[in-house]
Amino acid sequence: MNHEGANYITPTVHYEAPLKDIAFQLKAFGYDDVAALDDFEDYDFETAMGVLNDVSEFLVEKWLPTNAIGDRVGVQYNPGDQSVSLPPGFKEAYDKYVETGYLAIGYPVEYDGEGAPHMLSLMIGEMQIATNKSLSMCPGLSHGLISSLKEFGTQEQKDTWMPKLVSGEWAGTMCLTEPQAGTDLGLVYTTAVPKENGSYNLNGSKIWITFGEHDLTDNIIHLVLARLPDAPPGIKGISTFIVPKFKLDGTRNGIYCSGVDHKMGIHGSPTCVMSMDDAEGYLIGEPHKGMRCMFVMMNEARLSVGLEGLSLSEASYQEALYFAQNRRQSRSLNRERREMDHEADTILVHPDVRRQLLRIRSTTEAMRGLACYAAKHIDFSHHHSDQKQRKKSDDIVELLTPIIKSFFTDRGFLNTSDAMQVCGGIGYTQEMSIEQHMRDIRIAPIYEGTNHVQALDLVGRKLPKGKIFAFAAEYQGLVATCKKIEELSEFIAPCEEAFKLLTELSTYLQANGMKDPEIVGAVASEYLNVFGYATFAFSWLHQARAALEMNHDLSKQKIKLARFFFRHVFPEIYSHAAIVRSGKDAIMDFAADEF
Amino acid sequence: MNHEGANYITPTVHYEAPLKDIAFQLKAFGYDDVAALDDFEDYDFETAMGVLNDVSEFLVEKWLPTNAIGDRVGVQYNPGDQSVSLPPGFKEAYDKYVETGYLAIGYPVEYDGEGAPHMLSLMIGEMQIATNKSLSMCPGLSHGLISSLKEFGTQEQKDTWMPKLVSGEWAGTMCLTEPQAGTDLGLVYTTAVPKENGSYNLNGSKIWITFGEHDLTDNIIHLVLARLPDAPPGIKGISTFIVPKFKLDGTRNGIYCSGVDHKMGIHGSPTCVMSMDDAEGYLIGEPHKGMRCMFVMMNEARLSVGLEGLSLSEASYQEALYFAQNRRQSRSLNRERREMDHEADTILVHPDVRRQLLRIRSTTEAMRGLACYAAKHIDFSHHHSDQKQRKKSDDIVELLTPIIKSFFTDRGFLNTSDAMQVCGGIGYTQEMSIEQHMRDIRIAPIYEGTNHVQALDLVGRKLPKGKIFAFAAEYQGLVATCKKIEELSEFIAPCEEAFKLLTELSTYLQANGMKDPEIVGAVASEYLNVFGYATFAFSWLHQARAALEMNHDLSKQKIKLARFFFRHVFPEIYSHAAIVRSGKDAIMDFAADEF
Repeated sequence: MNHEGANYITPTVHYEAPLKDIAFQLKAFGYDDVAALDDFEDYDFETAMGVLNDVSEFLVEKWLPTNAIGDRVGVQYNPGDQSVSLPPGFKEAYDKYVETGYLAIGYPVEYDGEGAPHMLSLMIGEMQIATNKSLSMCPGLSHGLISSLKEFGTQEQKDTWMPKLVSGEWAGTMCLTEPQAGTDLGLVYTTAVPKENGSYNLNGSKIWITFGEHDLTDNIIHLVLARLPDAPPGIKGISTFIVPKFKLDGTRNGIYCSGVDHKMGIHGSPTCVMSMDDAEGYLIGEPHKGMRCMFVMMNEARLSVGLEGLSLSEASYQEALYFAQNRRQSRSLNRERREMDHEADTILVHPDVRRQLLRIRSTTEAMRGLACYAAKHIDFSHHHSDQKQRKKSDDIVELLTPIIKSFFTDRGFLNTSDAMQVCGGIGYTQEMSIEQHMRDIRIAPIYEGTNHVQALDLVGRKLPKGKIFAFAAEYQGLVATCKKIEELSEFIAPCEEAFKLLTELSTYLQANGMKDPEIVGAVASEYLNVFGYATFAFSWLHQARAALEMNHDLSKQKIKLARFFFRHVFPEIYSHAAIVRSGKDAIMDFAADEF
Repeated sequence: MNHEGANYITPTVHYEAPLKDIAFQLKAFGYDDVAALDDFEDYDFETAMGVLNDVSEFLVEKWLPTNAIGDRVGVQYNPGDQSVSLPPGFKEAYDKYVETGYLAIGYPVEYDGEGAPHMLSLMIGEMQIATNKSLSMCPGLSHGLISSLKEFGTQEQKDTWMPKLVSGEWAGTMCLTEPQAGTDLGLVYTTAVPKENGSYNLNGSKIWITFGEHDLTDNIIHLVLARLPDAPPGIKGISTFIVPKFKLDGTRNGIYCSGVDHKMGIHGSPTCVMSMDDAEGYLIGEPHKGMRCMFVMMNEARLSVGLEGLSLSEASYQEALYFAQNRRQSRSLNRERREMDHEADTILVHPDVRRQLLRIRSTTEAMRGLACYAAKHIDFSHHHSDQKQRKKSDDIVELLTPIIKSFFTDRGFLNTSDAMQVCGGIGYTQEMSIEQHMRDIRIAPIYEGTNHVQALDLVGRKLPKGKIFAFAAEYQGLVATCKKIEELSEFIAPCEEAFKLLTELSTYLQANGMKDPEIVGAVASEYLNVFGYATFAFSWLHQARAALEMNHDLSKQKIKLARFFFRHVFPEIYSHAAIVRSGKDAIMDFAADEF
């Protein structure tokens, strides 16, 4: 394939925002309880759906057409002035989105945001990613920065930086990684030396900086990890600084892009090498305690990355479904389904095509439900009147964050691959968008903490701190309720089985992990997978119950999808559980020189 | 990412031909028995290893450096003369390979081939794909054509076409698919009308034609599916024709490339749209019985495609291992493994990195063993003195072909993804070759019959014809032998369990599949997966036994790898088996308008 000049093709895309399912999920997972909180009185369900409808029209019209061009043309690094040009159409798509005001919908009213519930802004997030994942990363990064400032900035810092970040006039970044310091941020070398005016002088290099440089906004505000002169070694000597591209007096600051990476996907998202040469920075939060600030930012980011798995699953599903509804090959194995006025039947009659489509759809909707559930608890954790509920909700969010980040992104990747398989050869070409989705999603299991780092967070931080209890109580409560409903009886056994497995394996990990941390390392990823299937089971049982209660348009489908999930996807849990039980021996007995 | 001009980067590649393991596998799976056959008296084990050593040096030196350039630059379609230019370096790499004579090593001596055993040429095939998958497809296609000619050509046809195909002076293609006829070849429209001179006049369009046009060889010989005027409808009205690009009198024939596809990977392999406008063709085999000829060609091709999963797993493993041995991040969880003279330990100390590497390696070596085993039986089926053994071997090859094609390619794709995960962000960039391998391998589950088509072949053709018995007897024989060996005792239970599962599920399919073919469609792919894990179990039990017997350099590692496989990979079989048992109801009860 030759990429030179205009010698590329863009696909015909079939994507509609999944508003019908979003409406179902918001209702099913308690949007009305969120809207009933004092802080969200302007956002009843009808208002929320109105917003979603508007935003989706905008995104499908303005963002979606730029997605493939972004992939084909990519970003352009201009060594002369160290600038980065985004692909054609990106700036206009971004600017117009800023104009709509929807970019600011989830932000605090005191900084000119619209104060909408997270449950609503998360669903907007899904559609942003589905229509242009690369472009969506720009407001995504700003979001994390805003959250950090909100929690750790001084009033002056908030007043200085937040309004234009909230409006989208400026964009944010996270500058963590250095060549020698990736997963291991304790190895960060970048230095920050206090200056007389109270600011700091920063020097060092950062890599993998998403939207580190671009032409979308007037200014770019970097959040940078660095070490003060008196910093202790390791992770406890990291501080956090704001380093703007342009200082407040309008002069150019000493932070420059020195190159962009050539990646497998997200070609419209610049991944920059950033060099700081006496850049002026401003300390955020306490000295040496920068990781606290970074964790706020990263936790936000991790949920958004998880959402990428959902979004590109949905987008790929729609493409594959469209193809399956229109492509005719061979005859149905069931004579009654044959359309003899055509030379062949649509491939949607073939059991394996349906199986692959339903595998994508049932996991996609499991993810969407769980995302809504997590978002509700984010809203509760910040806005609920009952402090105990806030704590419970916070525990649920902390527990689910690593699972959503990992399990959604791994599944999202597999789903794009299944969607391609439905389409055969043409799915492998630029004539369809699936191959781009597959390349775009594959970074998600890597960035914002690899999926194994998430698993270590789950096992090493969340389990010992008892973050599992609030979710476990909700899970058991749901099963107990559903046990009384005859139509749900077929789903109870697997849900109970999943809980039993989780209990067994959590006990195993707590008993052995303290004695031998290598066991945790060896099995954490597979343990997270077991947990992931359990959360999908929870999501489907909850949706099935809601479907019965609500008598919704989708109710019949939801019961069928739950059935498909429990029979054709859920059994995957057993393999992962068996592998957890294998422990570490066969892994660690292999000598280094035997690899 | 911008692809314009020379603005791309090529990776530093770490690949060595895995000669040590190849030597082990050839010994373990009975190369000496093949070399003892009369037809292979020139190819004892030492000779074979000498050839492999020579070929690997050539391929690493001449082919490997062209692989990334092929990906970055791609093929160029020139509309002016409807020609296709391959990427820089490809022609030289191909020509020099032809000069070595190794391209012809596996072909019959009577057509100037070297008559080497398939077991040897298959291992050469692995290295060709690993060093340049795109380029390897050109001799790969010729290979299928040669096999078809050998079986169905007249003596005159053989004499006319084979020598230059064997030498590599000419290249072959397979022209099957048309826009409306992919999996369903019964829908082929291309027509062939008899001419007075005994040849045929062909008109029609073909798509997805690999190496349909290129600048590597003086002539391109197409094998084309078409319909004679009196052809019955459907698959029973297909005939096969030879259609050369240049006729024997040197005039240009009416078959032209009208475009190339823009694909996710294999950018160095032209995927062509071919148009025939009164092209002259020559019937091969009997009228209307073209599918027999195609099946010979396709079966060859299917094994080669399976090999792609093995080759790119190996190549990706080596990259990931090199990275893991050199990248330092964080400290070992085991204090004794820490290297305190470095700021951090190599990531090879981390259990999850090892787990991922061992998952790739244990499945890669399972595949290589099984490929050797299948190749031995190909050799037996054509060259063994005992006709009963020929029949048994033929059954084994027929049974394993769909499994090798599907299971190897699915696993190969997952392995490239695991390898990328080991490397983190850099694995996602063009600085490493893994992202290319991932894109290159993803076509393999699609072409030469999608993996589900393979599963239908396994369940619909191979099981009812009793093709399972010869392999089942070998499997049970191996287990019975190994039961007596104490060091292998830990591997017996899973091998017996796999056999039990296969028996149960085969019985289920035979009992229900006849009554309701939709059940076969619904579960065939997962049944093939169960079979796949059973063949890997067979491969590892066989290798473990051989390791004990041979007291080879690799023996200790082999036992450890077998242990890893049975504990950390094999349990995946349970999920697939559970899903087979779920049958078709949840899939087929979903109405078409509910998707």
